[in-house]
Amino acid sequence: MSITTPRGFVASGLAAGIKASGALDLALVATEDGTAVPTAATFTSNLAAAAPVQVSRAHMAANGGRAAALVVSSGNANAATGDRGRSDAQHMCELAAAGLEVPVEQVLVCSTGLIGVPLPMGPVGTGIPKLVAARSGSAEAAERAATGILTTDSGRKEVLIESSAFSVAGMAKGAGMLAPDMATMLAFLTTDAAVEPGPLADLLRIAVADSFNSMSVDGCTSTNDTVVLMASGRAGPADPNAVADVVTEACSTLAGQMAADAEGASKIFQVRVTGARSDGEAHQAARKVADSLLVKCSINGEDPYWGRVASELGSAGVEFEMDRLAIAYGSVAVCRGGVGVDHDASAVASHMAGSLVDIHCQLGLADGNGVVMGVELGYGYIDENRTTS
Amino acid sequence: MSITTPRGFVASGLAAGIKASGALDLALVATEDGTAVPTAATFTSNLAAAAPVQVSRAHMAANGGRAAALVVSSGNANAATGDRGRSDAQHMCELAAAGLEVPVEQVLVCSTGLIGVPLPMGPVGTGIPKLVAARSGSAEAAERAATGILTTDSGRKEVLIESSAFSVAGMAKGAGMLAPDMATMLAFLTTDAAVEPGPLADLLRIAVADSFNSMSVDGCTSTNDTVVLMASGRAGPADPNAVADVVTEACSTLAGQMAADAEGASKIFQVRVTGARSDGEAHQAARKVADSLLVKCSINGEDPYWGRVASELGSAGVEFEMDRLAIAYGSVAVCRGGVGVDHDASAVASHMAGSLVDIHCQLGLADGNGVVMGVELGYGYIDENRTTS
Repeated sequence: MSITTPRGFVASGLAAGIKASGALDLALVATEDGTAVPTAATFTSNLAAAAPVQVSRAHMAANGGRAAALVVSSGNANAATGDRGRSDAQHMCELAAAGLEVPVEQVLVCSTGLIGVPLPMGPVGTGIPKLVAARSGSAEAAERAATGILTTDSGRKEVLIESSAFSVAGMAKGAGMLAPDMATMLAFLTTDAAVEPGPLADLLRIAVADSFNSMSVDGCTSTNDTVVLMASGRAGPADPNAVADVVTEACSTLAGQMAADAEGASKIFQVRVTGARSDGEAHQAARKVADSLLVKCSINGEDPYWGRVASELGSAGVEFEMDRLAIAYGSVAVCRGGVGVDHDASAVASHMAGSLVDIHCQLGLADGNGVVMGVELGYGYIDENRTTS
Repeated sequence: MSITTPRGFVASGLAAGIKASGALDLALVATEDGTAVPTAATFTSNLAAAAPVQVSRAHMAANGGRAAALVVSSGNANAATGDRGRSDAQHMCELAAAGLEVPVEQVLVCSTGLIGVPLPMGPVGTGIPKLVAARSGSAEAAERAATGILTTDSGRKEVLIESSAFSVAGMAKGAGMLAPDMATMLAFLTTDAAVEPGPLADLLRIAVADSFNSMSVDGCTSTNDTVVLMASGRAGPADPNAVADVVTEACSTLAGQMAADAEGASKIFQVRVTGARSDGEAHQAARKVADSLLVKCSINGEDPYWGRVASELGSAGVEFEMDRLAIAYGSVAVCRGGVGVDHDASAVASHMAGSLVDIHCQLGLADGNGVVMGVELGYGYIDENRTTS
């Protein structure tokens, strides 16, 4: 499990003093020799995008899809910080670029943490040169990098998939099933497969749609969400479709770790919609159900109130015919033809008492399928999110 | 405060036995002499619309915008009940039509309560003839009607606005700030102004948009939401614009009563968006903020975390420029030009400790304004909604 296992990458992590706790709060991933390699990035669609997102977007537009490094700070989102925030994010890139001796537009930057508070540039300015100096291909350095991007996460989130032809590694932070606000979703992946910038961007977009974008904590789109994939090419040319499959699998694994981060504290559910007019409509309907406060409360109360599920499907903005609807909890059908059916209530109760509740909605219209994960709404969510202090 | 104060209407309410508690659960509003009068109705956009909504829609399509009566049951939504539900709703209309000696399509029907359980037609079938027989123009009968439509409401919701030219009265149920799922929003209005069906439909649509549709409890659209306005014409022709103003005021008063129904148990907030590209965009942005779980939690925690508000505005799907954004809690600006500003934290804390929190978001783009009411998310919501039992 190391972001530096794919050949051609180094990493480091450091406690610069952004976090009052003294935990690691800076991380770096860079190419071993300072060359710019094909890099793809997807960013939040939020128009209140944080300063580092704005700067990284500009750098991606200027570097032709090739970057040499990524610098990350945690504990402060550098969001809603205006011109000062943009200047601070740019300065983070400049410090890393100077240390690595690469053009500044080949450096990307991410931050995660509280919104609306300026970055403490004293510790950051002192920290980044040390962070660059500490870079290494060792497992320990990679571990420190994967730790340095965390906020409220209960532990590191890492993935490594090795094939005979190439390998893909990743590290992520987020999920915060209980504290999504602090939990900007960040994921950074490396591969030694050789893929050109265009195909690399295409395959990352698909991988993100099939993994991170199929989770629902609370329907909020963070100001800082970012996914970056760098491809060193050291393993030689690879079939882009094969790389796409492995990157998608890596992203799904990281998404699963985010969901599981709440284990024990929260109950998770998956909404599977089948029989929709299209996969897109199925996904949209599944998200409407997974985002519903009432459904989330029902999961917390282990109450199989399928009428709420039907009501959400009916207002999801997709083609829907009540008389064709079937709903099952686990393997037990509770509704067919849009009406309730006799069922084994104890089997449903037993399924709902588990840690993963499965709600299957068959729309009966065509072949569209989609799955979205959701998290219960209970006291824990409120306790974590009612104040930031 | 009586739905029968506008000339030409009678009403009644009855305990038929739908509710186990023995509370009133049937209500009727009808024209005094059985004539069909200009009537407008707006229904939920939910594609899982309940049987009574389907039947009422069909009757409105067949009666040329003229109805003679409205029959309502509470305690059971007759939703997700399939063909049987449609047949039951139609039968409710037939029973009322027979008693009133009017064509069945001149009767509208509404139900509110639990989803997915067939209506108990025994009590309903025995009750409706008695309900029709009990109709009267008395204040007591009107009071019983206003009681018979309630579910989890803490009390009747009524309005009466009398002018020299005509009067408008209304009764409603809903809000259920704590139990929105049971709280299908129903509102029934009468006026003695003479307005033709076309203009009547137009003015009701506007009144609903400016009142009920500007509230946000949890973003859910009920299967049963219905608003009906009947105009007897007994006061003679009236300027439709004047009627529109009074109907809008009546609807706003009822909406306010719904919001206030949670008083003491829940904290309410209003999101005012100004400076948007259009009124529509302002409303859309205000709704995004009011619907946000994280913002709702902040209100519960009395935490003026404006970064969350900015993040929601940025993902509301409207034109937005972070650098032009200003946010104030009460009268205290906490953000200007998209960044935090020094402010009197104790004044903000004092405002947030009140029962109505005001969040003003100035987008700084144009003249569009919109307001949406929201309700905090606290333990109470979860306690009420985690199970239906």
